[in-house]
Amino acid sequence: MNSIPFNKPYLTGKEGHYIYQAVLSGKISGDGVFTKKCHTFFEQKYGFKKSLLTTSCTDALEMAAILINIQPGDEVIMPSYTFVSTSNAFVLRGAHIVFCDSRTDHPGMDEDAIEALITPRTKAIVPVHYAGIACDMDKIMDIAQRHNLFVVEDAAQAIDAYYLGKDGSKRPLGSIGHLAAFSFHETKNIMSGEGGMLAINDDRFVDRAEIIREKGTNRSKFFRGEVDKYGWVDIGSSFLPSDIIAAFLYAQLENLDDIQRKRMQIWTSYYNGLKELQDNGFLKLPPATPYSTNNAHMFYIILNDADTRAKLIDHLKANGIYSVFHYLSLHKSPFYASKHTGGELPNSDHYMDCLLRLPMFYELEPADMDRITGTIKSFFIK
Amino acid sequence: MNSIPFNKPYLTGKEGHYIYQAVLSGKISGDGVFTKKCHTFFEQKYGFKKSLLTTSCTDALEMAAILINIQPGDEVIMPSYTFVSTSNAFVLRGAHIVFCDSRTDHPGMDEDAIEALITPRTKAIVPVHYAGIACDMDKIMDIAQRHNLFVVEDAAQAIDAYYLGKDGSKRPLGSIGHLAAFSFHETKNIMSGEGGMLAINDDRFVDRAEIIREKGTNRSKFFRGEVDKYGWVDIGSSFLPSDIIAAFLYAQLENLDDIQRKRMQIWTSYYNGLKELQDNGFLKLPPATPYSTNNAHMFYIILNDADTRAKLIDHLKANGIYSVFHYLSLHKSPFYASKHTGGELPNSDHYMDCLLRLPMFYELEPADMDRITGTIKSFFIK
Repeated sequence: MNSIPFNKPYLTGKEGHYIYQAVLSGKISGDGVFTKKCHTFFEQKYGFKKSLLTTSCTDALEMAAILINIQPGDEVIMPSYTFVSTSNAFVLRGAHIVFCDSRTDHPGMDEDAIEALITPRTKAIVPVHYAGIACDMDKIMDIAQRHNLFVVEDAAQAIDAYYLGKDGSKRPLGSIGHLAAFSFHETKNIMSGEGGMLAINDDRFVDRAEIIREKGTNRSKFFRGEVDKYGWVDIGSSFLPSDIIAAFLYAQLENLDDIQRKRMQIWTSYYNGLKELQDNGFLKLPPATPYSTNNAHMFYIILNDADTRAKLIDHLKANGIYSVFHYLSLHKSPFYASKHTGGELPNSDHYMDCLLRLPMFYELEPADMDRITGTIKSFFIK
Repeated sequence: MNSIPFNKPYLTGKEGHYIYQAVLSGKISGDGVFTKKCHTFFEQKYGFKKSLLTTSCTDALEMAAILINIQPGDEVIMPSYTFVSTSNAFVLRGAHIVFCDSRTDHPGMDEDAIEALITPRTKAIVPVHYAGIACDMDKIMDIAQRHNLFVVEDAAQAIDAYYLGKDGSKRPLGSIGHLAAFSFHETKNIMSGEGGMLAINDDRFVDRAEIIREKGTNRSKFFRGEVDKYGWVDIGSSFLPSDIIAAFLYAQLENLDDIQRKRMQIWTSYYNGLKELQDNGFLKLPPATPYSTNNAHMFYIILNDADTRAKLIDHLKANGIYSVFHYLSLHKSPFYASKHTGGELPNSDHYMDCLLRLPMFYELEPADMDRITGTIKSFFIK
């Protein structure tokens, strides 16, 4: 029997063709033809004031940390249940990270726990839209406004996901905070192997973002003919990806609707197939979230304890199915445990111990879904 | 008449095929099959203790700055005539840059000027092998050893170039300093659009380099089975490129000898074609460098003054030929002029004003060479 990997990159078919086109254009370094096509796509579809491709979501977060001018000792509030890059990007600029617990009903940060963590040193809130499910952005933006804080959305998993406001509005994730970071890592809905994007929603950051991304030079202005030579004007790095990467990504973007439709089918198939196990108390499925669409980035289940999860992983593996747990609470990490200034974060630890991600990629077929859900059922119901 | 660009990316033919292979391998994120092939290639051919692909040479330099533990106020000595990333990578960690003048005979840093710049705060020397021509590494390593400094070679332009020691030894550039950074930007001999590599020649840095490159996690050890889970253990970033980039690069590496042979023909053709102008005092050609091989990365000429250079650029452009000047002295940049603590650096300024780079890429044919050298001659000899 074939094994079912946790993830498998999906080729829409035009990636190779576009890469050749990029080479034939005479420019495969950053900001070539396909990078510009991707920028236009994102700005038009999601209304970001400015999109800038980066080599990773990590790099987009690092740009954000530089743009909001993080200085040593500044505090940044974020969930503990997130990827290390969410925090590393700010730690590299000297920030102290103040970790917030996750919600009881899903791994997103507990919006009601944020305000108690604010001090005079707080500079930013970094909500992470876990599994593409929106944090309550109205609540977070209100807190930020009242305390004069920046909001950087970690939208790594949140492409083509929307926040549904109480006023009936539907706003794309990544378009609400001052800045937002997306990932196109191979495990994401839209991928380029490694890759990311900074979305800028506040005009104040546009000019400096271009400079920081071009190694601290005003090269972008030079190419637009706004200055007659370019030089070193600020700190910065080489945040821009090769146009080869953008060409690959653009082929994916052209198929976004098809990819999303297919992933939603898989997600629904998991939900329907496993509902019986939730009804019988064996596990929990992702909750309904009336303030968020579902972009079908991930399908996770919550087991009742860590031991059950470990045994289920083994059971699936013995049947050729690869499932993976996710983050370790950052406030308990070897690097940050001694620096953590807050208390216990029980929900974060609960997801660390009990959350399990199931295979999720375009090419999963109905027979695969039956096999995976059947194998999980056979673990609980002998 | 067709125009001749300054640069044109060269496809060896297998790039697209290898990218498909990478996708079919099921892994196009970092450290896939082709990344490992590239690492092995570099380690075997050039004897680096460890090679790690990065998303850019800038990123490799940033890794070096973290690895040698640059702290605010530490001083780093480097030429002023270099790319902004050479300095930005260290400035991001808080370093003060101490700029050294270039040599009289070529743009490499003046090795005899280094020792006077050393203070108790000096932590590293960063020699830049301009145009792939070696700095006098015996001299630099001797200074570093006597003053207990790190040496980070900026080998952005120095792939497949060698230092020829007085003892008759021939050592690859990038294999001599504690650390070295290479570039695979599309203007380089071997390219992947954007791309770079850190070469590590000191065992002390190997383990931490893997961690820093993997966002500060011990993920590399996890995949080798040396730890049973991985977590956040250090600062770091996402320095690793997509395997798509590595697949492209590997196709180039397989053709390294052919590429080098062809570029050397072009270089020699320039030299022979323009020698007459040097003999008549109109310009200077790159000097003979007995302590370095020539990797034919670049062909530059030095005009007698900035005005002549500007007019020659216009003359070439009017004839459909694109030539470009290079760096602006960093010690005079808007960002660093007020921070520069040294004196005048006249050689650096001379190359800033008078150096001109001529078209250099694989597909230049003898007829192109005749046309370019002929057009330059027609500028000087009416």
